[in-house]
This record gives sequence, structure tokens and C-alpha cells, in this order.
Amino acid sequence: MNTDTRTEPTELPLKVLAFDVFGTVVDWHSGIARAVDALGLSVAGDTFAREWRAGYPPALARVNAGERGWARFDDLHLQMLDELLARHGITHLSDEQKRELNSTWEQLDPWPDAIEGLTRLAQQYTICSLSNGNLGLLFKMAQRAGLPWDTILSAETFGVYKPDVKLYLGVAHVCDVQPQQVMMVAAHQNDLDAARGCGLQTAYIERPREFGPNCPNPDRPDPANTHVAASLIDLATQLGC
Amino acid sequence: MNTDTRTEPTELPLKVLAFDVFGTVVDWHSGIARAVDALGLSVAGDTFAREWRAGYPPALARVNAGERGWARFDDLHLQMLDELLARHGITHLSDEQKRELNSTWEQLDPWPDAIEGLTRLAQQYTICSLSNGNLGLLFKMAQRAGLPWDTILSAETFGVYKPDVKLYLGVAHVCDVQPQQVMMVAAHQNDLDAARGCGLQTAYIERPREFGPNCPNPDRPDPANTHVAASLIDLATQLGC
Repeated sequence: MNTDTRTEPTELPLKVLAFDVFGTVVDWHSGIARAVDALGLSVAGDTFAREWRAGYPPALARVNAGERGWARFDDLHLQMLDELLARHGITHLSDEQKRELNSTWEQLDPWPDAIEGLTRLAQQYTICSLSNGNLGLLFKMAQRAGLPWDTILSAETFGVYKPDVKLYLGVAHVCDVQPQQVMMVAAHQNDLDAARGCGLQTAYIERPREFGPNCPNPDRPDPANTHVAASLIDLATQLGC
Repeated sequence: MNTDTRTEPTELPLKVLAFDVFGTVVDWHSGIARAVDALGLSVAGDTFAREWRAGYPPALARVNAGERGWARFDDLHLQMLDELLARHGITHLSDEQKRELNSTWEQLDPWPDAIEGLTRLAQQYTICSLSNGNLGLLFKMAQRAGLPWDTILSAETFGVYKPDVKLYLGVAHVCDVQPQQVMMVAAHQNDLDAARGCGLQTAYIERPREFGPNCPNPDRPDPANTHVAASLIDLATQLGC
């Protein structure tokens, strides 16, 4: 743990925790793999889930680069699903089945520590999502899973996807605090690097099983993070909540 | 009550209730009047509150007309406060006192029926704010008052103020439903007229004391509203919640 950014001369108190959601708060791999397996496709859910998720960074990068207009995360997911099914030669799913499978992203379970961790953190800080998921996806997930967000912020709020600086600076602006009064919480070092570049504090959450039990997670925390925690409960403890 | 829009041929179910906040869910007049009186200014809080609020429609209209760039509701409130204090020849308040007075808008109390009504409605529908207040103002208000929003939507989400159609169509888009599956809930007929023009259902909430006990509220419901209710509890009962 490196606490440099917490003892800067300004000493402004930490006010807001902004959370990445997929992989950090909810377990996308298990939920997607289970839904795919339930359909009895010719490809294992474990593999399909990782392939679906892998389509997401390049799709978002194309939007951010202006190579395509704004597209909602839900719609990008559906388009990636179409491409993935075609690649696997799976042609028998109806549009309704595809939409239903796509809605699995709204129905992901939180990691076992997430609700308790968020609830404890919310007693002392404003907690918000800062996710590339669209607002509708995020609030449906929160309704189902009971995620106690104070407010839901999304790439859709800012019209651009992470890691664009507009999101990290935007959360500070929306909450009317200085960037160093916001801590980005994520299981992905690239998200935290971008946040730190904007002056936010950072908390790295270790999620060794993000990609499933059969696929080691290659992500590693940088020593420059303000905190590294094994769970959101651990983060709450580290922050004295 | 006119139920025409609820029995259209499409028969899509109502899914989302989008709420105006100031005057509809919270009592701005009492809260502002009390805060002004506590400062012992030379003008009565009762009058000052109404004057402050009256500055708001023209200020937003200037933003929507492009006569000035985007300005956050909080900042517009502070600017209106400066103008109002100057008009009354009040020059002794410090910047800190003005900021604190301005933050009263985050600390308004819900009408006595609001929490119970919202809580009942949330069991059956997605409930969200659709307010000209900025996101930070709205979530701080929700934290303090315990407003159980599923998600907070604001003019800030859409980059324009009500009654621009982008907000009413935007809430349907964000929630991934058709406009007729959204009901705008407001104590202001002009807000509901604009929502109805976009195909939303409308519920008019009677708030006879919106402008305080000494000032009759001239707002009247149009017979074309889907519902007219005496409170949010009454609306919950009318909707079978």
C-alpha cells in the first residue's frame, strides 16, 4: 500500500468511491458461463464467456476513436454476441433467445464480499458506479443484486467510454469535489492507471477468478495504487469503515 | 382521471415512473424559508424563497436557448442568490455563508407522503428522478432524505433542461422502454404537458402548499393527465401498489 496521495499538502478528505463494476463488484464470468451452458450450445460456457468479454475493449475503443457513433453497451454486447455465435457456426438461436442471453449481463451476481463491503463503505463515503455499462443495465443489476449505490454513473452519463479522462474528471465534477477526493476502485490496473493520471486515488481489488476457475487472471496491481485489497470488505477495513 | 393512454392498442405495460423533484417530492419552500430566516436577513424567508425559485425558469430557458453555455443547477442557484441578495441590498453575507445557504437545496425535506409513496411504488415500478437539479444535488438530497431512487436522472444526464424533449425521450431510452411505458410524475402541468407531447403517461400531484402557506398555488391539472393524485401515497394506491 502506498499512501503518498493521501498525505498530499492539500489534505482534502476522501469523499467519493467510484467503482468499476464488471469483474470488480460482480462476477461476470460465472453468470455468463452458466447462462450459455443452460442453452446447450456447442461451445463451453467457460470459453464463450471469456470470448464475449474479450470483444468488449476493441468495440469500445472504436467508439472512443470516433470510428463509429455512440453505441450503448447493451447494443455492443448484442452485436458482439451475434459475431461470436457466427464465428462458432451457431445459427439456431432466435432473436428473443439472443436478447435474453444478452440480458444476463444485468443479472450477474455480486462477488460474495461485495454487498457487505459496499454497505460498510457507504456509511462513510459516497459510493457510485463508474462503469462502461449503460445506465439501464447498471440500475437493473443494482435492483436485482441489491447494490446500494448512492448514484449510478456510467460512460453513458459522459458520452464516452473508459479510459477516457472525461469519466474520471467527470465523477469529481458531478460530486463537486477535487479529483484527489475520489478513489477509483477496480480490479483492473489499466482503469486505475487512467484514474491516477487524472489525480484520483486508486484501490486495486484482487479478483483472481475474474476469468473463471480455469484461467489465471494476469492482471497485477501497480505499487503506486493507494490501496490494494483482497475484497471490498478488506477495503472497508483498510479505510476504517 | 383519463385512462386513454393506458388502453392504447399496443397495451405495453407501465414500467418506469419518472419524478420531478422540487415541489413534487420535496418541499423547497419551507426548507429555503427556514434557512433564510435563520440568517436573520432583512427580507422574510417566505418571500425570499419564492423569489429565489422564480429566478429559475428564466435562467434555465437561457441555457436551453443557447444564450449561455451549460451551467449546473447548483451554480445557477448560487448566481440567482447573488442577484437576489443584491436586489435586496444585502451585502454582508460571506461567500461561505452564501455557499452554505445554497446547499439548503440539497437538504430539503420530502413531503410527508413522499417516502412511503415512493417505497410502495418502487415495489412494482422502476422509480427515477427526472429533475433539473444536478446529479450531485440530487444524490446528496437522496442520501439525506432517504429517497429510494432506483436511479437518478437529471438534466445533467442529458445536457439540457426540462422541458426539452431530450429528457422525456431520454428516460425511455435509458430504461430501454417505449415512451408510453414511462409515467412522468409532477406537481407542474407544464412539465406533464411536455412529457405527454413525447408520448409519456402523466400523473399530476397536487401540492397546494408548494409556494408556502401564504401563497395559493395557481397550478391546475389538465384533464388529459393519466392520473391526478393528492399525494404519492394516493398515486401508489391508484396504481395498485
